[in-house]
Amino acid sequence: MSVSIDDVTRAAARLAGRIRRTPVLEVSPELFLKLELTQHTGSFKVRGGFNRALAAGDLPAAGLIAASGGNHGLAVAHAARELGVRAEIFVPTVSSPVKVAGLRALGAEVTQTGAVYAEAYEASLKRAAETGALEVHAYDQAEVVAGQGTAGLELLEQTGGVDTVLVAVGGGGLLGGIVAALDGRARVVAVEPERIPTLDRALAAGGPVRVEVGGIAADSLGASRIGAIGYGLARAAGVRGVLVGDEDIAAARLELWRSFRVAAEYGGAAAYAALRCGAYVPAPGERVAVVVCGGNTDPSTLV
Amino acid sequence: MSVSIDDVTRAAARLAGRIRRTPVLEVSPELFLKLELTQHTGSFKVRGGFNRALAAGDLPAAGLIAASGGNHGLAVAHAARELGVRAEIFVPTVSSPVKVAGLRALGAEVTQTGAVYAEAYEASLKRAAETGALEVHAYDQAEVVAGQGTAGLELLEQTGGVDTVLVAVGGGGLLGGIVAALDGRARVVAVEPERIPTLDRALAAGGPVRVEVGGIAADSLGASRIGAIGYGLARAAGVRGVLVGDEDIAAARLELWRSFRVAAEYGGAAAYAALRCGAYVPAPGERVAVVVCGGNTDPSTLV
Repeated sequence: MSVSIDDVTRAAARLAGRIRRTPVLEVSPELFLKLELTQHTGSFKVRGGFNRALAAGDLPAAGLIAASGGNHGLAVAHAARELGVRAEIFVPTVSSPVKVAGLRALGAEVTQTGAVYAEAYEASLKRAAETGALEVHAYDQAEVVAGQGTAGLELLEQTGGVDTVLVAVGGGGLLGGIVAALDGRARVVAVEPERIPTLDRALAAGGPVRVEVGGIAADSLGASRIGAIGYGLARAAGVRGVLVGDEDIAAARLELWRSFRVAAEYGGAAAYAALRCGAYVPAPGERVAVVVCGGNTDPSTLV
Repeated sequence: MSVSIDDVTRAAARLAGRIRRTPVLEVSPELFLKLELTQHTGSFKVRGGFNRALAAGDLPAAGLIAASGGNHGLAVAHAARELGVRAEIFVPTVSSPVKVAGLRALGAEVTQTGAVYAEAYEASLKRAAETGALEVHAYDQAEVVAGQGTAGLELLEQTGGVDTVLVAVGGGGLLGGIVAALDGRARVVAVEPERIPTLDRALAAGGPVRVEVGGIAADSLGASRIGAIGYGLARAAGVRGVLVGDEDIAAARLELWRSFRVAAEYGGAAAYAALRCGAYVPAPGERVAVVVCGGNTDPSTLV
């Protein structure tokens, strides 16, 4: 299964009026920040989750179901509320009360089960089989990837075209969607935290493999394995991957706040970190866009 | 002295490449947020201060001088640094060490003198007469007002036109500039904190009068008297003024953060507060733009 630019274009048509066309900050003629943190629920995730729900047509009485203690859960809860259907979100028992409260504030039913994400995910699949709810995967479904790609279509329109797009990688949904959306019109650089190298290891191994998840960006980029769809798209496009350290991510996040009043979460600052720390060095005159993909952060840590 | 749309257009030409064209967030087809907090130094002020300096042509050896413990001081310090000249900023002795440090970090020489702003301002005028430095007023100079107006020109271009622009008022520099820039193409609604009603009292009195300054937005909107230029432009255009309470401003600021991840300062949230609390109620289908004019805030207060 893969995702094409046509899938992304169809997703954009479905999502019109449902998602925000997030603004782009032009820092210079060579640098653009796509402020995806201003999206509904504070991250790009609502694009994919909403597209999955809309593409399904008539939704089951049981509504939507997903496993996520983070941005994906918020996105699915938001989409369900907008569509007037139920949302059941499975989160591991270690999830913070703040996150659980955030999901409940959006009207979701929250089930806390399993010590780690994978156990919550398995429980959600079992539950979906019982209830008939539509499962919305955090990254490895075609409609989810196509939905995330709509950010890439907007970016091209808003900038008039760029040479390079820097995007952070967790499960690879945003990465794959943007690769499909750009369709060769700009190169994509995939940025991963050193402590969550899902793409890096997959490219080395010739396919998705399990990695240890750690570090400051784990709450948003902490997939233990890249999705098959995102991996396939990235590999076919010859996407270059770069790694950034946690201290680079933290410094980039503070710079986004100090220089632009952009309050990104750690994962949302990873792509900018690659530019700031020199993991990716543009050529002279190269036009670069950075996707600031989420802002679900504790702002008191920006002081 | 007044300011025309031609003055604003000339300011925009001068400022090209010097300031950021700040992004607009389209919340809905009827609501736009102009994210002026992403401007250099975190507020619109750099537009006016920089235009004043550029319009002067060759700058004196003594550079720029201004009185301000807040956004205007940062803006003048930034412009001076960019232009390679000195900046001398006068602030009252009560200014917080954080603000003084922020000015010094931009390379400004900071003089702390006087118990209140007015005394620091008088001292800065005396000093300017001695050194020959170019005085940059916080709001009541034509080039300053014209520079602030460039935000209005951008807004029209970025939105394709709106019916109404909501803008916060302190000394009236941004208000006057936007009135001049719109030049009748959209109505302007001036939003003031109840505790700093400089325009409200001036309209009632038939001219600028001194008001008591207080409340949570005083650090950015706390002028004790509206400037003659901003007042004249607002009066001639028949600008409507509305007042908002401190609790409305605080609630609007939290909503900007929670719904859009926009971290405004209190003064920067005042215009949005008018919409949120019903001080200004748009007609059905009316297209409204809100200028979020600053983000020099302690983000820990957003939690």
